[in-house]
Amino acid sequence: MTTPDAPALPLRPELADEVPYGAPQLDVPVRLNVNENPYAPSDDVVATIAEHVAHAARGLNRYPDRDFDALRDDLAQYLAVESGVHLHRSQLWAANGSNEVMLHLLQAFGGPGRTAVSFAPTYSMYPEYARDTHTRWVTGRRAEDFTIDTAEAVGLVETERPSVILLASPNNPTGTALDLTTIRAVLDAAARIPAVVVVDEAYAEFRRAGTPSALELLDRYPHLAVTRTMSKAFAAAGLRLGYLAASTELVDALRVVRLPYHLSAVTQATARAALSHRDSLLAQVADLRAGRDDLVGWLRAQRVDGRPLQVADSDANFVLFGTFDDRHAVWQGLLDRGVLIRETGPEGWLRVSVGTPGETQAFKDALTDVIGEK
Amino acid sequence: MTTPDAPALPLRPELADEVPYGAPQLDVPVRLNVNENPYAPSDDVVATIAEHVAHAARGLNRYPDRDFDALRDDLAQYLAVESGVHLHRSQLWAANGSNEVMLHLLQAFGGPGRTAVSFAPTYSMYPEYARDTHTRWVTGRRAEDFTIDTAEAVGLVETERPSVILLASPNNPTGTALDLTTIRAVLDAAARIPAVVVVDEAYAEFRRAGTPSALELLDRYPHLAVTRTMSKAFAAAGLRLGYLAASTELVDALRVVRLPYHLSAVTQATARAALSHRDSLLAQVADLRAGRDDLVGWLRAQRVDGRPLQVADSDANFVLFGTFDDRHAVWQGLLDRGVLIRETGPEGWLRVSVGTPGETQAFKDALTDVIGEK
Repeated sequence: MTTPDAPALPLRPELADEVPYGAPQLDVPVRLNVNENPYAPSDDVVATIAEHVAHAARGLNRYPDRDFDALRDDLAQYLAVESGVHLHRSQLWAANGSNEVMLHLLQAFGGPGRTAVSFAPTYSMYPEYARDTHTRWVTGRRAEDFTIDTAEAVGLVETERPSVILLASPNNPTGTALDLTTIRAVLDAAARIPAVVVVDEAYAEFRRAGTPSALELLDRYPHLAVTRTMSKAFAAAGLRLGYLAASTELVDALRVVRLPYHLSAVTQATARAALSHRDSLLAQVADLRAGRDDLVGWLRAQRVDGRPLQVADSDANFVLFGTFDDRHAVWQGLLDRGVLIRETGPEGWLRVSVGTPGETQAFKDALTDVIGEK
Repeated sequence: MTTPDAPALPLRPELADEVPYGAPQLDVPVRLNVNENPYAPSDDVVATIAEHVAHAARGLNRYPDRDFDALRDDLAQYLAVESGVHLHRSQLWAANGSNEVMLHLLQAFGGPGRTAVSFAPTYSMYPEYARDTHTRWVTGRRAEDFTIDTAEAVGLVETERPSVILLASPNNPTGTALDLTTIRAVLDAAARIPAVVVVDEAYAEFRRAGTPSALELLDRYPHLAVTRTMSKAFAAAGLRLGYLAASTELVDALRVVRLPYHLSAVTQATARAALSHRDSLLAQVADLRAGRDDLVGWLRAQRVDGRPLQVADSDANFVLFGTFDDRHAVWQGLLDRGVLIRETGPEGWLRVSVGTPGETQAFKDALTDVIGEK
């Protein structure tokens, strides 16, 4: 359609060489590449979703509840059960995926002339949120074991004076949970600037026993936001429901930048249907945690080129392992055997999601095969 | 929770005095305030939606199709039937409401250091999109009859040199459709800058016979984007499905700024279900168009303070009428009688959506009553 004489489009120059974000969507028997929950919703869950959506569809000609009060109540109730932290609906926020929640945060508190800070290696979407909101992006480094050194983090915050600090815990792609001492130190440093501290707990439900949630800090830090998602623990990546817990004051700021009616009636109905099945869905999370611990143990027993594999501690539903001189060859070898994992993280490492027992076995068999070839 | 000693939040200063956008969501018997389609989905439509969503829910643990190819095919097929314009799926884009489509447009083509132009009175969300993307916002004026003077529009474009030009047609809140001569002149001026021209056709299906759609211009203007929505003609405001037709090149730019997986599997399934019922849904649109023409005629026959009411020509599912010395009193009088309309548009005017025959009658009765009191 565009001819040589056609006018150029005024695309922003910083976007000119960018490609759309996203892992390849390949049709492969065993997909362990994007940290999905491997368990499809049960017939019971599907039936409840269909029923709730049919009810919502009867009023679909009307705009949805702009403030999604019923869903916020359900999310608050869920967090009370999951983490023992009791919140009011006015402290909850939700959007189409936690990436839209992050966009709202950076629209309200970041933007031109402001800085956001995180600690690499971490979630690869964060710089895109910064780019999309014209927020300057600065990364500190995580330690060798992928934790964050408290003094270094506080130092970086004091030097860079960001308005937003993003801490993923458990971190993607490493699986590392932060301890509350580090988070508290960053919160205290942030209070002096001031900055909002976002603890991204997308994988929180997979944390090991004894690992705390930053939700426990909410009552003392009004500049703390803890984000969660229904994509992983609720086996609902297709639903796109991310949410956040924070002070009412912080949530009220997000209400100003959200597009009106951003959460559809169908999304609200489906999310509430899934939340009503929380007990059975969280039972699967327990199975996945056990599968993750087994997988970490198995990987640590493997040797490549005479050395044991390195495997990061994981509080998530995935495991980062390595290092390989040629990680792409290992990734490709697995794909050739019908197992798709993710080539991500620091050089030489690979990330695998925890699947069903059968999928994990297929991954182990394929990896044994690929390593044995060498 | 926030105490006097609590740190301030680093809210962007330009947001400090803003309130969340949106009309009051009041529970009133006759709601004619937000241009919803008054006809709830039929049992047939509800059943198809429940069936499609149940199917999607069976794979809800997986991320949705990031490029929503099947939905884009369905939208292309629908536009071919509705407007006789044949497009490839790569020329279609969709998001959670046309306001998210607009956000994508301004993220790709607007932003800091750039200008967007529109012509007032027009849709009150436009300046919010500009604010959210740090785009400078400039408005020209529409003529007395709410059309756009072609020479003035071209002059403004040449003076302000925007990168985005927003033309609502049919315009909200006035109902005014633009003729293609004006749109073509603006497109030609835009090509020399260059700028993207967005024709917002949210209400296009309600246009009167003989009113063209800007879709007809797509094959000659790669910098044209025509936005549509399923909220109105498809009676699906609760679904939040806005979409856009443009050149592949323009759509490819939007793919860079969209958040990955922004359209949920549930949204895609519901939209496709509704599109499969297009014939019955468009039959209702024909009824609403007839109701709109009747309402315009009836309003023109009313007199206030000895003068006939002014009523704007409407190609939409609402009618702008006035003027009243105290429009708020008229709005309140209607609300007291159980009829909610919208206090919007130029000073003295009011906007009423076209309802079912019963709702329209309730509005007429209430207005007669309120006017008679004076």
